[in-house]
Amino acid sequence: MSALAPGSIIGILGGGQLGRMLALAAARLGFSCHIYAPEADGPAAMVSAYHTMGDYLDLDKVKRFAKSCDVITYEFENVPAVTAAACAQLSPLRPGALALEVAQDRLTEKTFLQDKAGIAVVPFADIINVYDVGRACKRLNVPAILKTRRLGYDGKGQVKINSEDDIESAYKALAGAPAILEKFAPFKREVSIVAARGIDNTFSAYPLIENIHRNHILHSSTCPAPNDNGAASAIARAIMDALDYVGVMATEFFEMEDGSLIVNEIAPRVHNSGHFSQDSGCCDQFELHIRAITGWPLGDTKPRHSTVMTNLIGKDALDWKKLAADENTYLHLYGKGSARPGRKMGHINVAGTPLLPKNSDS
Amino acid sequence: MSALAPGSIIGILGGGQLGRMLALAAARLGFSCHIYAPEADGPAAMVSAYHTMGDYLDLDKVKRFAKSCDVITYEFENVPAVTAAACAQLSPLRPGALALEVAQDRLTEKTFLQDKAGIAVVPFADIINVYDVGRACKRLNVPAILKTRRLGYDGKGQVKINSEDDIESAYKALAGAPAILEKFAPFKREVSIVAARGIDNTFSAYPLIENIHRNHILHSSTCPAPNDNGAASAIARAIMDALDYVGVMATEFFEMEDGSLIVNEIAPRVHNSGHFSQDSGCCDQFELHIRAITGWPLGDTKPRHSTVMTNLIGKDALDWKKLAADENTYLHLYGKGSARPGRKMGHINVAGTPLLPKNSDS
Repeated sequence: MSALAPGSIIGILGGGQLGRMLALAAARLGFSCHIYAPEADGPAAMVSAYHTMGDYLDLDKVKRFAKSCDVITYEFENVPAVTAAACAQLSPLRPGALALEVAQDRLTEKTFLQDKAGIAVVPFADIINVYDVGRACKRLNVPAILKTRRLGYDGKGQVKINSEDDIESAYKALAGAPAILEKFAPFKREVSIVAARGIDNTFSAYPLIENIHRNHILHSSTCPAPNDNGAASAIARAIMDALDYVGVMATEFFEMEDGSLIVNEIAPRVHNSGHFSQDSGCCDQFELHIRAITGWPLGDTKPRHSTVMTNLIGKDALDWKKLAADENTYLHLYGKGSARPGRKMGHINVAGTPLLPKNSDS
Repeated sequence: MSALAPGSIIGILGGGQLGRMLALAAARLGFSCHIYAPEADGPAAMVSAYHTMGDYLDLDKVKRFAKSCDVITYEFENVPAVTAAACAQLSPLRPGALALEVAQDRLTEKTFLQDKAGIAVVPFADIINVYDVGRACKRLNVPAILKTRRLGYDGKGQVKINSEDDIESAYKALAGAPAILEKFAPFKREVSIVAARGIDNTFSAYPLIENIHRNHILHSSTCPAPNDNGAASAIARAIMDALDYVGVMATEFFEMEDGSLIVNEIAPRVHNSGHFSQDSGCCDQFELHIRAITGWPLGDTKPRHSTVMTNLIGKDALDWKKLAADENTYLHLYGKGSARPGRKMGHINVAGTPLLPKNSDS
């Protein structure tokens, strides 16, 4: 398993802002990117050498794409299993199919984390019909959250159940999709770990990140988060080892009143809560991922100063001129046309206090 | 003169590594780039949304390119005047044609700097024939350097004259090209200023940079350079004001034993000696240029720590794996295929001592 040389072609499934920032990082290291995405000119294709516009289920097209790549990765976890398999036949797929399978389905994910990785998750129940919801609410107690097993994001595909009266409407809201019920975790705060694992099992994690959500969408992330005892990073590493993971992965946690950590979910990709790393003076999560999947040495994940990342959602991005005038603010925009409500248009990183210097001379 | 909104198209004449890094910086701010270059797939085109492959003198093609752009800039100073004029008819050209005219011709440059900007330059003489060389050597004294007026770079197009015996062979070496003779400046060190001027005459400069050349090619740059009394930055600003300049410009100086500064040359573009800025914790020179030419607020040019940039020339770049393993080294590769001797393949930035913190809290 040797490292891919500069000039190699990195395939990326998905054409959004995460693919764009991966492509920019890959370019810094001398790689070229080939984007596979259904859109004509999304954020990632606009900065990449090659672009195949195609449906993820057009497997002939997927295979032609895969043949052109030296390694393939993805920027979203809902890559269909058949697409991933077609890619993996022709080129190394990193992270591998197991990570996708686990991350795509909340039931598989929670079962894997609990049974295979030995990690604490919220109490949960498999839901096939409305009667299951009633039984599970009795067993787990309300409040609880009914979630579709697949394709939920940013709060979509989930309904809170505060009392037994909510059961029927909640179940109807999911329109018959396979679901799980999760006991509501009265967490003190939400934190995440963004870390990479290399093809040689090396591991490198940024410090703990504290996340604040608004309307179920990530609003801001602070790194380093206060009160990091290293437990979250150890859990992330155990999960990545259990998945034989290669690349950057995010692990989201609920931290409870007593300080204990419950894994909420994993994202087998670069992650919004890791964007702070772009302007923190170390290797950013995009370059870290590229290094991991190409077999390079993992990058340095020790920030030089604290950073607060804040998303620019919808019209927030119209403030670009004001944001650009603040000398302590690093502005990132994704090249998306219309600032629709709820759409992630960009983010800012604001530099905070310097951390201990990494070195004392040059 | 209002700022160009994100999503606007930035035209770049030239397709090499400077264009590539400009395009990457533009992408971070949500812009798209259109590269005009003679090569099929150079470093810049590989990371840009649009690419016109064409000769710089194919003015019909240049005009079609120019029509598609909201602003046009360039990554090399030898853009033909007719090309620049064709662009400027259809779209703002920044920096403007005067900067190109001055920087393209050593005689025009020295005359402008001395007469229009009131700046100290080395004694020089206009050379039309071999007799001019003899007369000029008598007037200025040897050692002196005979240089072609146009198209010289990295030591190409120049010959040192150590005694009168060298005159004939030196003149022959230039094959009749219009030339100037410059008195050799016995400098203590070479330094440069990389600075931006905005469309509203704002000015922002990085600290003084100290440069070391090997075989006439830039080897390394250190920023901040020791012993910066602000004089170099003031001279750069005076030149940029005299040119009514918009964008990033580099000014190269000889610093003499007595501390006085002589301007060696200017480069009307981002510059190799400014690459340190990519990993110094402030706005890098590429983003700074994009901000200046799009009418945005200029970025912050105060580094958080000292940085030493070293070029990777030819086979130096084959050490990528070793360089990537050093946690204090930031690696940049340009995506060029063959590591020919003397070819700039990439560079590294090595972070040094932290400078005074810019802010005490977030």
